[in-house]
Amino acid sequence: MRALVVGGAGFIGSHLCDALLEEGHAVICMDNLSLGTRDNIAHLEENGNFCFYEADASQPEDVKKIFEDEHIEYVFHLAANSDIQASAENPEVEYRNTYTTTFQILLAMKKYNVKRLFFASTSAVYGDKQDVLLVEDTPGLAPISYYGAAKLGSEALIHAFTYMNDLKTLVFRFPNVIGPRLTHGVIFDFIRKLRKDSTHLRILGDGRQTKPYIYVTDLINAIMWFQGKAESGVSIYNVGVEGTTSVTAIADIMCEEMKLSEVVYEYTGGEGGWKGDVPHFQYCIDKIHNAGWKAIHTSDEAVRETIRQNIGGECV
Amino acid sequence: MRALVVGGAGFIGSHLCDALLEEGHAVICMDNLSLGTRDNIAHLEENGNFCFYEADASQPEDVKKIFEDEHIEYVFHLAANSDIQASAENPEVEYRNTYTTTFQILLAMKKYNVKRLFFASTSAVYGDKQDVLLVEDTPGLAPISYYGAAKLGSEALIHAFTYMNDLKTLVFRFPNVIGPRLTHGVIFDFIRKLRKDSTHLRILGDGRQTKPYIYVTDLINAIMWFQGKAESGVSIYNVGVEGTTSVTAIADIMCEEMKLSEVVYEYTGGEGGWKGDVPHFQYCIDKIHNAGWKAIHTSDEAVRETIRQNIGGECV
Repeated sequence: MRALVVGGAGFIGSHLCDALLEEGHAVICMDNLSLGTRDNIAHLEENGNFCFYEADASQPEDVKKIFEDEHIEYVFHLAANSDIQASAENPEVEYRNTYTTTFQILLAMKKYNVKRLFFASTSAVYGDKQDVLLVEDTPGLAPISYYGAAKLGSEALIHAFTYMNDLKTLVFRFPNVIGPRLTHGVIFDFIRKLRKDSTHLRILGDGRQTKPYIYVTDLINAIMWFQGKAESGVSIYNVGVEGTTSVTAIADIMCEEMKLSEVVYEYTGGEGGWKGDVPHFQYCIDKIHNAGWKAIHTSDEAVRETIRQNIGGECV
Repeated sequence: MRALVVGGAGFIGSHLCDALLEEGHAVICMDNLSLGTRDNIAHLEENGNFCFYEADASQPEDVKKIFEDEHIEYVFHLAANSDIQASAENPEVEYRNTYTTTFQILLAMKKYNVKRLFFASTSAVYGDKQDVLLVEDTPGLAPISYYGAAKLGSEALIHAFTYMNDLKTLVFRFPNVIGPRLTHGVIFDFIRKLRKDSTHLRILGDGRQTKPYIYVTDLINAIMWFQGKAESGVSIYNVGVEGTTSVTAIADIMCEEMKLSEVVYEYTGGEGGWKGDVPHFQYCIDKIHNAGWKAIHTSDEAVRETIRQNIGGECV
């Protein structure tokens, strides 16, 4: 099939391009390179089944050109501002890069009669519900970040466009995703900080923020597993892993892998890392397990593997 | 207080301006006159506590000017495309008039430090859940119209902005609202059709679509009752009435009030009036009743009163 990957030069998007090409599909990659990079797809540019458009999915003209020229059969929409902390100061980034991209892509699918959609949603749609087991239809979704709000708004659009235009839509709510080509987040920050000063590590919050981390190739396997099975309507899945990892545990694993034994941790204090952060979070992944998929890496293993990949052979 | 009514020249907005002025508040009315009209507020233009801006809440510059000049203390946001049937063909109307207006208003509230918000949401956020008693935290909200999607997206934004900026926010989910100054909908259509041809009436669907209709002054009383009691965070209420009225019952009441005894009904057939219509709908209004408010008119009474107001003394 001819697959459009929106946000295909990003961290997760570029891994998805790899997997789709490996299964023999034609991949049209669209990215405005705001967070994605040419480096992430450099290894694909000679591939005859791959083409890249530097284009902005929030801009109708950019979207129109691709849908007109490329006979798209399946849209994988992963374009978004994925840096929640950054958009806390500037919600307009979420309006443009997270919500409007979804709207314009759906509008083009309607116009050009494209029926299959994968959408990258997020655990942030739930908001801060610490004592609730989060299943896909947990009531009272109340995002506390602009990012979560723009993703929940996108899900709402997807429901209406799917119903009105008879789409087959798959929505995955991602937890924290880590692995090679990471561009931000706690692991990325810690490596940078420890490379600058290997004696002290400043940790946002009290270090007890605890979340599940999924390894990017596990997530990609889940997308590839389900994309062929799309059914009419909207199917939503929490995608996750066994276990969670605390921020202090990440620091510990990192010091171990970097062979640093004397690092002093300095906590900024408070429950969350920043306003809009959900400090403790784990969701129920029974639905996706029951559908036949399971991650290979636990959360701790994903963290360790990511650190190894990102520090490479070098010592600080 | 100084209240900004966004969409204040519209059907419901203009009644809210009346009520706020009556209680002695200063009212700044903002409307782009896409659905609202000068006629709706003509009786207020001499009032020293009232001022009107013809301005578009989806445009940052328009919003900025009002927040800069007017020292707003409370925002009542009722601007939206309220004609669901019309936007089924053109979802961009909802993106601009329903979602983007909410985003720009929230952004201005953040910037200008305005803490109190009333938001007009809708029963359409629930989607088509015919066998479920719809309470405020019913799970799995899945709107089937672009209008419902843009309103649910707006609610998501409101959660995040309220949390991030410590707002006091009141959200009412409206059912069908009717009364004087109505601009569209089934009653409006039937009057127009019967004035043109008093022997036949074309009815969309099978006529069994059944919904609660609230009289606009009852709704305004609810807003006025709760606006003074705003608490931190987001409070969501279904606002409704006892009973529901079917489309055929509306036709019957109308013929009775218009003294037409020989009208032949012609049904277009099908469950819903149009794609995106939710044919049977009633939600639970226990929460708002328990909080001390109750509508005066039942659904049937609201329908009859609206017909009387809109046909006036004239016969067709």
